[in-house]
Amino acid sequence: MSATNTVFIGKKPVMNYVLACLTLFQNGATEVTIKARGKAISTAVDSAEILRKKFSPDVQVKEIKIDTEQVKDGETGATSNVSSIEILLAK
Amino acid sequence: MSATNTVFIGKKPVMNYVLACLTLFQNGATEVTIKARGKAISTAVDSAEILRKKFSPDVQVKEIKIDTEQVKDGETGATSNVSSIEILLAK
Repeated sequence: MSATNTVFIGKKPVMNYVLACLTLFQNGATEVTIKARGKAISTAVDSAEILRKKFSPDVQVKEIKIDTEQVKDGETGATSNVSSIEILLAK
Repeated sequence: MSATNTVFIGKKPVMNYVLACLTLFQNGATEVTIKARGKAISTAVDSAEILRKKFSPDVQVKEIKIDTEQVKDGETGATSNVSSIEILLAK
């Protein structure tokens, strides 16, 4: 899998991320990874599910990994732990 | 795995769910499933990560499944789709 086939989930509407994945698959990608941290994790799962159930029934969830990342606050310099998820989708 | 070894994630503080899992494992469970829907999915991942990283390093994430559930609104009768997650933890 190329490192470019990754969709990072942020605060945009969920359909933006569904379309981003769809575009990658239509451009020939066989695997796309959805990555998210913190509250965006629910949006990551939503994106994967909408993609599979509404747009591409041939896309499968191949692997899901969860982890903890350390995030440093730019202002206070304090580090905090935030959960992350990686959903590997494959055609 | 017994059906009782399931922790449903809701809107309580995340430590409630971490402690619920911890108690199940200490009472002899070898597998605990964390289930959540919608926005609670991030809390489910947080619970699993806090449990593993802070309290029980011997607990492993064995399997993660995502799915879509249909939820019916009691007032309007309209059905809507909501994403769900199941995190299977094992000792």
